[in-house]
Amino acid sequence: MTPERIPIRVGATESVVWVGSGLLDDAAERLESPSGRYVLVSSAGSRAAADRVRGSLSGKLLADVEIDDAESAKTLAAAGAIADRALEGGIRRDDAFVAVGGGVVTDVAGFAAAIVLRGVAWNAVPTTVAGMADAAIGGKTGVDHRLGKNLIGAFHLPRAVLVDPAAAMTLSDRDYRSGLVEAFKAAWIRDPELSRRAAARVDSILARDPAALLDLVAGAVRVKADIVSSDLTEVGRRRLLNFGHTLGHALEAAEGYGHLRHGEAVAWGIAAALEISRRRAGLSEGDAAAISGVLGRLGPFPRPKVSGATLAPLLARDKKATARGVAGVLLESLGRARVEESIPVEEWIRAAAAVIPVTEGGS
Amino acid sequence: MTPERIPIRVGATESVVWVGSGLLDDAAERLESPSGRYVLVSSAGSRAAADRVRGSLSGKLLADVEIDDAESAKTLAAAGAIADRALEGGIRRDDAFVAVGGGVVTDVAGFAAAIVLRGVAWNAVPTTVAGMADAAIGGKTGVDHRLGKNLIGAFHLPRAVLVDPAAAMTLSDRDYRSGLVEAFKAAWIRDPELSRRAAARVDSILARDPAALLDLVAGAVRVKADIVSSDLTEVGRRRLLNFGHTLGHALEAAEGYGHLRHGEAVAWGIAAALEISRRRAGLSEGDAAAISGVLGRLGPFPRPKVSGATLAPLLARDKKATARGVAGVLLESLGRARVEESIPVEEWIRAAAAVIPVTEGGS
Repeated sequence: MTPERIPIRVGATESVVWVGSGLLDDAAERLESPSGRYVLVSSAGSRAAADRVRGSLSGKLLADVEIDDAESAKTLAAAGAIADRALEGGIRRDDAFVAVGGGVVTDVAGFAAAIVLRGVAWNAVPTTVAGMADAAIGGKTGVDHRLGKNLIGAFHLPRAVLVDPAAAMTLSDRDYRSGLVEAFKAAWIRDPELSRRAAARVDSILARDPAALLDLVAGAVRVKADIVSSDLTEVGRRRLLNFGHTLGHALEAAEGYGHLRHGEAVAWGIAAALEISRRRAGLSEGDAAAISGVLGRLGPFPRPKVSGATLAPLLARDKKATARGVAGVLLESLGRARVEESIPVEEWIRAAAAVIPVTEGGS
Repeated sequence: MTPERIPIRVGATESVVWVGSGLLDDAAERLESPSGRYVLVSSAGSRAAADRVRGSLSGKLLADVEIDDAESAKTLAAAGAIADRALEGGIRRDDAFVAVGGGVVTDVAGFAAAIVLRGVAWNAVPTTVAGMADAAIGGKTGVDHRLGKNLIGAFHLPRAVLVDPAAAMTLSDRDYRSGLVEAFKAAWIRDPELSRRAAARVDSILARDPAALLDLVAGAVRVKADIVSSDLTEVGRRRLLNFGHTLGHALEAAEGYGHLRHGEAVAWGIAAALEISRRRAGLSEGDAAAISGVLGRLGPFPRPKVSGATLAPLLARDKKATARGVAGVLLESLGRARVEESIPVEEWIRAAAAVIPVTEGGS
């Protein structure tokens, strides 16, 4: 089967996402490096996929780095260590990185590529559903800080992204299900038809039927590509991708990174955003129930144990916070989202309390 | 006296360089922050200037960070520490940095601004001649790596740069003279008239006559602004600013950062580039002698003690190196430079040997 080619253009930079089966073994044909040389970055969890990419790039690697893919390892020091290995390998400006792994690997390696020699080209080969549908696409790279997720980073679009659903077949059930949250999220904010089609096939998707997964992931990539390709200055549109992320990030920070999967935190964030959307954006009960129903099938997800007193300062510290409040993405209907600029912290906490038990007192 | 306004436009971003006396005390009028709030970064060596900027920004600082301005302190960890302080201070995307100091301070603080929250605005208030004429302008930010200078970094244009020659009056004689090398360099690559005028006034400049210094520095800023403002894709033109830097960076790395001032290393690099320019670019003996004469007046500079065996791998590791050789900037005549892509390492070493005693054996 010929892979689908989905181009993304941001300013003067073009990125190409390839979606299809068999891409891993032919990686060399579609990865891009001006010099033809690569720095490969992978993790223990992505060894099977990395081996296939490594085989395809035989003789073209100037460095081969395995990093820890735990969220706790997504640090500035980790990006610095990758830069060290690339520089020790003699990297030049016309060389490129290729990151094979989940969101941690592509975020950290993409950021390392952004800062080595003030920026070299990079490619992403996501091995998780979240990475395929979201994290590896669009050029947001970075690392976490003890004060919050992704607080250090850069915009640096990968030249090529290879999305091969085969890489998702070895994921744990928990990782697979949490990753699907990000794929469905893309449908929910922008594609009502895909939302309905994927909801009808959720059993096949959960059973990892390749065709059903490919349809959902390719649709999610098309949504993200379309949003990211829009006018650079149209930042509001890109922010739609943060559906579920305002509260999601706060929950991850409150629980300590790694206790809750990113997709799980986003699922709770989406559930809370549905509450706010019902009140503020006119979301119908039927559309809200359709989304809640899918979330229920993807879960049940672990329930975070947090208090309002813990969440409040974490929400206020959100990158999307301004002096006027904390912005959030609301749904007007299935496939139609908008940004609301100033939702009071108290309203976020009330919405969280409606879907998760949130205590009032200290943590 | 009304300050001169020199705009720089790179892609969609505009930067404004203000040149004139009295800018430090009125900093708040010209520095730019969307929110009106600032993170101030300075160093012990720039305290006098930082105090004046701090006074002007009274009540608008969300963090006030003093860093070490030694070249050895220009590290990824130092940029991370600035990011820590900014995040602890509650920095938001609409806040801005202001860096007051020499090239180390503006390079590290500018890089921290580039990576905090994936990039916030920043401003530069250079307090050294090299910073005024070169380092603080044009958006090259970054830190050093044990394998070479500026190997980690980002392009991030400052919104405003305040060039007030008053800040240069307290510099040590060595710092002042080495900084003048970068100012003259700008004239030599692009402005024959400024080259001649400044050469004729070199005694006044060395005596720190404010008008003579202002004329040279403003001219250097205009050269840099013009080059940097050109089409982003015209990378060749921007590379002209590296006149003297190919060998200069290798000499700094060979000597260990901090032993040789940057401008001193560049002075030796320019002297060697004149040799190569005479052979490869038709530079006349008269023009070469005019430049050598000024370098002699700015010096004498400390002589690096290096061997060809030490320099060769350092040259090959240059950011401007490709598989084909090491690029360098050559002068065709006073005020007219071009990039030569592939100058063999051996030729660099022979040229260095002609101006500095370079031994043949190991270090």
